[in-house]
Amino acid sequence: MNKAALFQQIQKKQSFLCVGLDTDLSKIPAHLLVLNDPIFEFNKQIIDATADLAVAYKPNIAFYEALGAKGWESLKKTLDYIPQEIFTIADAKRGDIGNTSGLYAKAFFEQMDFDSITVAPYMGIDSVKPFLAFEDKWVILLALTSNEGSADFQLTESKSGKPLFQEVLEKSQSWGNTDNMMYVVGATRGEKIAEVRAIVPDHFFLVPGVGAQGGSLEEVAKYGMNASCGLLVNSSRGIIYASKGQDFANAAREEAKKLQQEMKELLAQYCH
Amino acid sequence: MNKAALFQQIQKKQSFLCVGLDTDLSKIPAHLLVLNDPIFEFNKQIIDATADLAVAYKPNIAFYEALGAKGWESLKKTLDYIPQEIFTIADAKRGDIGNTSGLYAKAFFEQMDFDSITVAPYMGIDSVKPFLAFEDKWVILLALTSNEGSADFQLTESKSGKPLFQEVLEKSQSWGNTDNMMYVVGATRGEKIAEVRAIVPDHFFLVPGVGAQGGSLEEVAKYGMNASCGLLVNSSRGIIYASKGQDFANAAREEAKKLQQEMKELLAQYCH
Repeated sequence: MNKAALFQQIQKKQSFLCVGLDTDLSKIPAHLLVLNDPIFEFNKQIIDATADLAVAYKPNIAFYEALGAKGWESLKKTLDYIPQEIFTIADAKRGDIGNTSGLYAKAFFEQMDFDSITVAPYMGIDSVKPFLAFEDKWVILLALTSNEGSADFQLTESKSGKPLFQEVLEKSQSWGNTDNMMYVVGATRGEKIAEVRAIVPDHFFLVPGVGAQGGSLEEVAKYGMNASCGLLVNSSRGIIYASKGQDFANAAREEAKKLQQEMKELLAQYCH
Repeated sequence: MNKAALFQQIQKKQSFLCVGLDTDLSKIPAHLLVLNDPIFEFNKQIIDATADLAVAYKPNIAFYEALGAKGWESLKKTLDYIPQEIFTIADAKRGDIGNTSGLYAKAFFEQMDFDSITVAPYMGIDSVKPFLAFEDKWVILLALTSNEGSADFQLTESKSGKPLFQEVLEKSQSWGNTDNMMYVVGATRGEKIAEVRAIVPDHFFLVPGVGAQGGSLEEVAKYGMNASCGLLVNSSRGIIYASKGQDFANAAREEAKKLQQEMKELLAQYCH
């Protein structure tokens, strides 16, 4: 789907919620563990409980890789189960030289049918462009993350005074367009989000999480929204591990609902 | 294995050759395609033909991911087949926030028993350190690559005049030590390698390839070697696709032998 279609979904569901399927055998309810594919069963129930509230699902690929070939199968089954109109993100943070990035693209865009993939920018243009060769598929490029280590290199200022993340944003804009490129922008303090928004006014941002490490959902919306919403805000643990009991899917729905209600108000307030 | 053990292997085999198992169904000999696992059969014969000449094998994970769960199985079988004393590199260029990097580490260090993994530095310290928590395992951090896009960000100079790759080298040195960290250093012009060597005199470098994009093997050895050799030089296509016929393993051996012979002389000349 392109940007307009994604925005349509956001308006339809009054939500810009992305549910992170960071599914961990040690964290899911014990009663699922006797099943043949506990990971998929968990994801299936989460999807069933939240599909009307979320515009995106984002499995972090590490969680599936950690389980070897079986994890890969659970991932594929999960992806196939997600309703067609919901935007899917392979949170893989891949990136390599040309032909190799092309193979990563094959893995996630052909072997599996993800709409998008997160990509690391360190190796520059030829490590990113191969993903953009796939029609109707998106690259979500790491720009400014909000983990502790984001300060190590992303904030390093060049001679012209620009931090590295700004160089990444500015340079990469010409590699694709607003219909196939998004940026990972951590929920840092509001001013930082405003800074990023000023550099890339029309691109979507994937915000990995709110609250814990920086800005609140309101701040992110206030400083980060644009006329097409322009935000996908992810929540993983807060939703999928809301309960460790038999009621886990309902509990997940409750938390997703709370966020969606807040998002509905923020859309009304800031999306213009 | 630690640095001393790796150097011991280099001295024993008189080689610092790493064979890149970038195994592609569209490139391997046709006669293998009727088999149940052509990828593994190919790798097995390559390993049989080159194990006495190589000190490392480096599968690029994208090639296996592109084949889904089946690719993951071929990868594991390949890894299990490699003789114990040969250094194995998961060329995965992974990197994510703390607990997620920890899961990538589980995938490659526990699910499969690789000695090392290539890691992208963009997200900083907490995206790298989780890999270093595994005993007897290495991180090979991207520093200066030699693809076209390496100029986009890696060479961007900070206010102090240091290019980004130098910031990466300097900052990351304290995250581990010379027994668990290496750096990916592209085979660029000799002076650049000398520059990198001056910043990190005692760390091993993984040099992804020689000839095509920059410095020759001699140049890399002349400017990059240290008293423990300090280099693993990779060759993929030049070796594994030397022939597309029934004699592919022998042809691979021929090419590996040529490189090893050259490396033997370079060790004598420059390793001190």
